[in-house]
Amino acid sequence: MVRVGIVGATGYAGAELVRILYGHPQADLTIITSRQYAGKPVSSVYPAFKNVIDMVCQEFSINAVCEQADLIFTALPHKIPMEIVPEMVKNGKRVIDLSADFRFNDPEKYKAVYQPHTSEDLMKKAVYGLSEVYFNQIRTTDIVGNPGCYPTSVLLPLIPLIKAGIIDTDTIISDSKSGVSGAGRSPNIGSLYCEASESFKAYKAASHRHNPEMNEVLSCEAGKPVNITFVPHLVPMSRGMLTTTYAKLLQNQDTSEILDCLSRFYKDRPFVRVCPPGSVPSTIHVRGTNYCDIGAVIDKSNNRLILVSAIDNLVKGAAGQAVQNMNIMLEMDETLGLDSVPYPL
Amino acid sequence: MVRVGIVGATGYAGAELVRILYGHPQADLTIITSRQYAGKPVSSVYPAFKNVIDMVCQEFSINAVCEQADLIFTALPHKIPMEIVPEMVKNGKRVIDLSADFRFNDPEKYKAVYQPHTSEDLMKKAVYGLSEVYFNQIRTTDIVGNPGCYPTSVLLPLIPLIKAGIIDTDTIISDSKSGVSGAGRSPNIGSLYCEASESFKAYKAASHRHNPEMNEVLSCEAGKPVNITFVPHLVPMSRGMLTTTYAKLLQNQDTSEILDCLSRFYKDRPFVRVCPPGSVPSTIHVRGTNYCDIGAVIDKSNNRLILVSAIDNLVKGAAGQAVQNMNIMLEMDETLGLDSVPYPL
Amino acid sequence: MVRVGIVGATGYAGAELVRILYGHPQADLTIITSRQYAGKPVSSVYPAFKNVIDMVCQEFSINAVCEQADLIFTALPHKIPMEIVPEMVKNGKRVIDLSADFRFNDPEKYKAVYQPHTSEDLMKKAVYGLSEVYFNQIRTTDIVGNPGCYPTSVLLPLIPLIKAGIIDTDTIISDSKSGVSGAGRSPNIGSLYCEASESFKAYKAASHRHNPEMNEVLSCEAGKPVNITFVPHLVPMSRGMLTTTYAKLLQNQDTSEILDCLSRFYKDRPFVRVCPPGSVPSTIHVRGTNYCDIGAVIDKSNNRLILVSAIDNLVKGAAGQAVQNMNIMLEMDETLGLDSVPYPL
Amino acid sequence: MVRVGIVGATGYAGAELVRILYGHPQADLTIITSRQYAGKPVSSVYPAFKNVIDMVCQEFSINAVCEQADLIFTALPHKIPMEIVPEMVKNGKRVIDLSADFRFNDPEKYKAVYQPHTSEDLMKKAVYGLSEVYFNQIRTTDIVGNPGCYPTSVLLPLIPLIKAGIIDTDTIISDSKSGVSGAGRSPNIGSLYCEASESFKAYKAASHRHNPEMNEVLSCEAGKPVNITFVPHLVPMSRGMLTTTYAKLLQNQDTSEILDCLSRFYKDRPFVRVCPPGSVPSTIHVRGTNYCDIGAVIDKSNNRLILVSAIDNLVKGAAGQAVQNMNIMLEMDETLGLDSVPYPL
Repeated sequence: MVRVGIVGATGYAGAELVRILYGHPQADLTIITSRQYAGKPVSSVYPAFKNVIDMVCQEFSINAVCEQADLIFTALPHKIPMEIVPEMVKNGKRVIDLSADFRFNDPEKYKAVYQPHTSEDLMKKAVYGLSEVYFNQIRTTDIVGNPGCYPTSVLLPLIPLIKAGIIDTDTIISDSKSGVSGAGRSPNIGSLYCEASESFKAYKAASHRHNPEMNEVLSCEAGKPVNITFVPHLVPMSRGMLTTTYAKLLQNQDTSEILDCLSRFYKDRPFVRVCPPGSVPSTIHVRGTNYCDIGAVIDKSNNRLILVSAIDNLVKGAAGQAVQNMNIMLEMDETLGLDSVPYPL
Repeated sequence: MVRVGIVGATGYAGAELVRILYGHPQADLTIITSRQYAGKPVSSVYPAFKNVIDMVCQEFSINAVCEQADLIFTALPHKIPMEIVPEMVKNGKRVIDLSADFRFNDPEKYKAVYQPHTSEDLMKKAVYGLSEVYFNQIRTTDIVGNPGCYPTSVLLPLIPLIKAGIIDTDTIISDSKSGVSGAGRSPNIGSLYCEASESFKAYKAASHRHNPEMNEVLSCEAGKPVNITFVPHLVPMSRGMLTTTYAKLLQNQDTSEILDCLSRFYKDRPFVRVCPPGSVPSTIHVRGTNYCDIGAVIDKSNNRLILVSAIDNLVKGAAGQAVQNMNIMLEMDETLGLDSVPYPL
Repeated sequence: MVRVGIVGATGYAGAELVRILYGHPQADLTIITSRQYAGKPVSSVYPAFKNVIDMVCQEFSINAVCEQADLIFTALPHKIPMEIVPEMVKNGKRVIDLSADFRFNDPEKYKAVYQPHTSEDLMKKAVYGLSEVYFNQIRTTDIVGNPGCYPTSVLLPLIPLIKAGIIDTDTIISDSKSGVSGAGRSPNIGSLYCEASESFKAYKAASHRHNPEMNEVLSCEAGKPVNITFVPHLVPMSRGMLTTTYAKLLQNQDTSEILDCLSRFYKDRPFVRVCPPGSVPSTIHVRGTNYCDIGAVIDKSNNRLILVSAIDNLVKGAAGQAVQNMNIMLEMDETLGLDSVPYPL
Repeated sequence: MVRVGIVGATGYAGAELVRILYGHPQADLTIITSRQYAGKPVSSVYPAFKNVIDMVCQEFSINAVCEQADLIFTALPHKIPMEIVPEMVKNGKRVIDLSADFRFNDPEKYKAVYQPHTSEDLMKKAVYGLSEVYFNQIRTTDIVGNPGCYPTSVLLPLIPLIKAGIIDTDTIISDSKSGVSGAGRSPNIGSLYCEASESFKAYKAASHRHNPEMNEVLSCEAGKPVNITFVPHLVPMSRGMLTTTYAKLLQNQDTSEILDCLSRFYKDRPFVRVCPPGSVPSTIHVRGTNYCDIGAVIDKSNNRLILVSAIDNLVKGAAGQAVQNMNIMLEMDETLGLDSVPYPL
């Protein structure tokens, strides 16, 4: 049993962490904190937890968290983690941070997108928590920068094909679509039911903060600079993210070769499901799960590959992958706490 | 381990049975049948099950089912179960039927709502599977008539108060609201996305088939004829059912007395959650769970009690309660297979 | 042509007023105000208006409004109108107020629900703008208190039957269901897409502010005190409201007599559509329109009448009825500006 | 006044035709036909029309239609129009066909996607009804092949830029997203509320029938073969379509030049709204309208243009554009019958 704590437990990703860790057979959730709901039972914020989870949200205190937990999840807006995580690590804690603060290794790149980083040393030691790809590095690190939801859905289908030299990295376009929970629980007008319902829209085209995060990882995997065109969209649904990625094939290949390449790369990774030829994913098939479903189609007339990947933005795109990373760090079965049978609908 | 089978595994309730029983620690799901999808993997019908459940739907055969399972769930349209269940029972099997065929003990009442019953003897032996209320009878029966979704949401809040003599049984009105999955997976125009979305409507007011089912149980509990006014409505959501019930109080009482009465009645029953005063349930708090949340408010100016109950129509209203009944029949912990931590949203 | 102005044009009801009045053949929309968006084009708040309506929201000023408009719509939170409307009336303007401030004639009743009223004289002169019922009084008044959305849907089916002495006024229960736009455009957590979607819930059971408003009108029409039990619910849809009302019949009557009574009462009123026997309304059939559809069913076993009424909460429940009242005040055809052909879906 | 008829009036596009034409100030809707609902009032199929439209659906008869209408809309599955439209034209009627049967001028291309064409002569005379682009040809034709919804949303942003030689036609990718009404009113499982809700998915990637239709038009405009990569997706909403199109710029240009090019091209066309820099469209802003909103963003790091276009798939994508074409054919104001003020939400 590992004692775990969650700092920032009442946002949507935090609440998912509560759900998964509370039900995790090898984790003992000892402390949860919330600035906004300190002193209140988490079940008063999310009544689904009534009679199930009787924990009370605490005001954040570095001492309390470090005393009660050995591994800490931070689910906070960026900029705050870089201020508190160093202290945790100094206390010998292992940390999985769900913000952007430890996703970059290069302070300049972080600064260009966010602000100057105040903990550069730790940033450089952090491992990017894309579980399937950085499995070995995650096992031994003390600090994981958990990937953004968009990067997770973009990178998983692309990396195997880039490593195999199959696609032209100068031609990559990812057109992503996210459910509204991606915008978090803050009450802003754009997230209101009446504004989001019957509304499908693009936003931050070619200027989303997750774009440099993807470029960083893809460049590293390709061994040369990769800049993809990335456009996120908002879908009238609560959970789910689907990304359609386009790239030119370097040679003539057929769909089965692409699918084989993906299947081989992920053959020991339980949470990537490669779709059979002729089939592409839907968000409802991964809702509430830690799966990433990937399908592929080739547009023969343009020799262009079309990749479709689906995740639950709050699970594989946030809390689920974070727990998967914990499992890896603790050398436990990767699927622990994440293996409940999916809902059929 | 008990070997279980599902006859009719690809409707919405059947698929939920597959989900729950496949994950049940003490059940071994050995056979699933489907007329429409015989020969196909259940994961081709519900791709969420990909890589998780590798079972193939079989054509129904009484012999195959009886050979491979000790306890059988039938999730079929009414009229079919009364033709096949007797043979199963004759083979020493225990059966939980999710249709209406074994919910009535009186053939005349069944006939008035459906058609003549062809297995009257068995019908009379069947126990009505409202788990919390008929717990003791369920333990020993071989045949359970699993309640309808509407009756479950109507009966659970009412029965304790009727038994306590608190409400005037001549004044009961239940106004129920169901998600679209209640209409099943058959492709009819009224269940299309474009017809159900932005559409809230009443249907079968005072003429729904579940109305006599409720009256039968309530009359039995009250020891006198009870006829409630029942109006179902359709809500633009997938899962969930909420019932608002109105009844005159026989004496002046306050909300806490009502809530106490409910809490006492259900104190050993883990799946009924009584809301604290001032709070009433929402379907999203029970989505995907086997809970029935119940709240109460008194309209003082009319001395009228308002009860609000929420369930997931496919879980507590169908497959979940069926598995709960199996647990009871097998003298196992009632919550086995049904105790995953609920999703916060 | 009448010059009209809207004070509070960027809330949901205000924006609907903009839509309807801008398209009204006999109204000239000369001024719109908005505290939050002063100085901005209304089409920047609601981009659907791009290239159609080029008006800019102004900061509210009593002088500007009175100079530019002869008839003024106030779509503001209660308490503000009672402070500014008297000045408008003093300037010879006619006012239609969409808040609660001029819905009551009795200051004590208003005070009990809201706060002390600061303009009691005007309040007593105001006419309750339930267009079909108070048609004659509306024609001649200078100040209309436009009804709440819930009262509109509750009162229209009930008043003809109460006046005809058909129902027992001690037994009335109205179970109402509203789309999320009823909560307005303020960014609160309960109105977020992720909180409202897949969520059906009751709220303010027997304690909603519209309940006394209904009682006031019903008592007046019945000639004796009427207190109904009223429970509002929230539906995961943008627009629409459906109310199911229950009441004991005083005599044995059949559905056609009820429907006849309603049809006779509303025979000259174009916006009430009485459903044929066997049919009840759905919100999608009135979406975007000023119609109130009414259906009736009798629960014979309890001699209880079930009335179902549907409106669009933002149109007949707010802006549409307000414009209908303007038409009546100006002795124009009641349907002007409100007669576009409804969308089929 | 022109006498118009609709053949196939009860599908979603047909019903929108009924709505628009019934409210059209210069059209007299004299006959509507429906195979499925012959003999029934259209208001029994779409109760929103109750008390507004009292027309009864008739069984299709070429004689009756030709006798009662001068201009005929056919809203039928492809293959049927090519059998009945020639007879109408022979009778001197002008026809606007909403199927694919008259969208191609080349029989071989039609055959490759659908089946052999049985009316090749007429096919060659037909004009492709993309109103803004083929305005002049539409004025004088007797037979319009009304564009598909996807092609409309893809072609409108692309054509001006292709004609201006701004983009590399070998690099075009269109990623389209459609509401569920695009699938029509036939009851198939994929269109059920429970299957479409919380489900975002791609389908027919690089193999949709609208893809050759787009290629045909783009090749014609470019004066050389153009094959775009096209992937359609299904969005959990009723109405609306948004297309994100990607293409390499041939030179360095900035967003304002792109927007200027679009604005100039459409300066006399009221239904194309070009978004200001920094703003991209949402489907909710065009819901129920005949507008096509277009926005543009440049991904500087890749010198790639991103175009976003939004339409209502049933209006500009079908019935609205058909009526716009009628207006053009009759040399009336293009906006007649299509100019109601849009709903703010």
